[in-house]
Amino acid sequence: MAKTTATCDVIGIGNAIVDVLVRVDDGFLGGHGLAKGAMTLIDATRALALYGDIGGALEVSGGSAANTMVGVAALGGRAAYVGKVRDDALGALFTQDIRVAGVAFATAPARSGPPTARSFVLVTPDAQRTMCTFLGAAVDLAPGDIDEPTVAAAKITYLEGYLWDAASARDAFAKAIAAAHRHGRKVAFTLSDAFCVAKHRGAFQKLVRDGVDILFANESEITSLYETASFDEALQRARGHCEIAALTRGEKGSIVLKGDEVHVIDATNLGPLVDTTGAGDLYAGGFLFGLTQGYDLGACGRLGSLAAGEVITHLGARPRTSLKALAAERFPRLLEP
Amino acid sequence: MAKTTATCDVIGIGNAIVDVLVRVDDGFLGGHGLAKGAMTLIDATRALALYGDIGGALEVSGGSAANTMVGVAALGGRAAYVGKVRDDALGALFTQDIRVAGVAFATAPARSGPPTARSFVLVTPDAQRTMCTFLGAAVDLAPGDIDEPTVAAAKITYLEGYLWDAASARDAFAKAIAAAHRHGRKVAFTLSDAFCVAKHRGAFQKLVRDGVDILFANESEITSLYETASFDEALQRARGHCEIAALTRGEKGSIVLKGDEVHVIDATNLGPLVDTTGAGDLYAGGFLFGLTQGYDLGACGRLGSLAAGEVITHLGARPRTSLKALAAERFPRLLEP
Repeated sequence: MAKTTATCDVIGIGNAIVDVLVRVDDGFLGGHGLAKGAMTLIDATRALALYGDIGGALEVSGGSAANTMVGVAALGGRAAYVGKVRDDALGALFTQDIRVAGVAFATAPARSGPPTARSFVLVTPDAQRTMCTFLGAAVDLAPGDIDEPTVAAAKITYLEGYLWDAASARDAFAKAIAAAHRHGRKVAFTLSDAFCVAKHRGAFQKLVRDGVDILFANESEITSLYETASFDEALQRARGHCEIAALTRGEKGSIVLKGDEVHVIDATNLGPLVDTTGAGDLYAGGFLFGLTQGYDLGACGRLGSLAAGEVITHLGARPRTSLKALAAERFPRLLEP
Repeated sequence: MAKTTATCDVIGIGNAIVDVLVRVDDGFLGGHGLAKGAMTLIDATRALALYGDIGGALEVSGGSAANTMVGVAALGGRAAYVGKVRDDALGALFTQDIRVAGVAFATAPARSGPPTARSFVLVTPDAQRTMCTFLGAAVDLAPGDIDEPTVAAAKITYLEGYLWDAASARDAFAKAIAAAHRHGRKVAFTLSDAFCVAKHRGAFQKLVRDGVDILFANESEITSLYETASFDEALQRARGHCEIAALTRGEKGSIVLKGDEVHVIDATNLGPLVDTTGAGDLYAGGFLFGLTQGYDLGACGRLGSLAAGEVITHLGARPRTSLKALAAERFPRLLEP
């Protein structure tokens, strides 16, 4: 089908989640049998038990792809989001927050079934985050929630690997890929989490090879995907499998690959590290914003690094300062009209 | 001319220098007007004055390309060295040490003129090294010291940028490049030092573009060569200019480039950092050894990283443990016959 003029830069599809941010010590993780740095799925009973054990918490809208879309919008891009909340208080909070951030969000909330998803983000003193996620209403995202004209209107459709945990969301995922490609659009995908990759390795390998144009992964995710001993070996595999790969390495920066093009991007240090939650999400946000503006891949990587650098200086996975102003200050020539 | 069977893996040509290792504090550098991390050339008078101001010192054979050849030999490669010493005590020390290390060294010592070169390697508590070099006899290296059949017998001729500081050594340098290429051999070159690059930028750019097959540079050297703000921009320039580039970044590891091939290599941590002297030299040694054995570029980079990782755990720029045993332990399959 012929490509029409895009009215949106990036549409993100993911699990719509409210983050419950809690500062804990390592003993708390051990006491609850939680693997540090990972995302563990929990059921409603365990979610209630965790709620009981934590003290003060900060509830903020999250969800990996949602954070990324907020990043795109914060840089001045046109972003939309698809994800399922319930018609409850947390669902209303999520909806209000993402719209205030400038992201178009029109997915109908569920009127029955489990409550809005929440993720306990347990931040240890080393700034690592360990997540326990109760997926709630998010698992009810279904193909009916994917509107083909909306997908067709976006330059890039961005999908998170976490969606793969629920069957109907997987179907929605596949529908979105087909719709995007039918309209000549690009599909971006984040591997989300090394444990998520381990669970769905075969399916993710196939996706990266056959369905994805732009891949985002961090070091533990990409080495898990290809089961390699070193980052370099995983990188060699990724190069052959998708058009663009942006591989993040925390403080070591990131590597951006496209065909025979390669960029080595440094991490951006904007202050002391407080909480790594959202670093990968915001990196993708900055990168995708750059890509939809037609910037070269090095600039895309630097924008990703900048957005990630901002979000790790405070608690929570969404930017607190103007990314647009930050980018204009750092890259004055880039953002000129 | 037709390529004959190589009887040597790498021949290194450089300033033959004895290192005088001294631990100092930052105040000593300030007091002597020395820029930390750089290599400053000094004359005989200043060399004598420095000698007077330092306390206990350790004299060990050094010289950048010489260290690299010792690394090649320590891994089991066939290495040779060309460099000028005087027929004095330090010259005898240098000659004895490099031969004991298994490197063929046949350059005739000068029978008159300045004494053997020495470099004061001032190691500060942060493990940085600041060098003051009195080039002495080394500057008298001349085209007559380059034996064409010897160069022709080596798979790779390795040259250090430091040679460029003296006119007759520059002529020797050019003769070696011409001889190597005439016999179908490869030429490798290290930029040596950011200050050295700043002094000879135009000449080095031309060399990299026209005369060099394999380039070694660290981050400050390559960004100085191309006067770029970021490592990534310098990398883009280097890619187009030589067949293979190995760009080192200290604790951030290294990037190896060849055509559309790229490898991202981690630094190897073998213990607490004591003295970075020789890190770049030994990286080149490990890399060149791998290359002459026909290993893939990723393995070459990992061998370079391993050799550099060893040399920074102790004072001095030459390995103290068996690199061959270390490599066999880390890469058992690689070194099988």
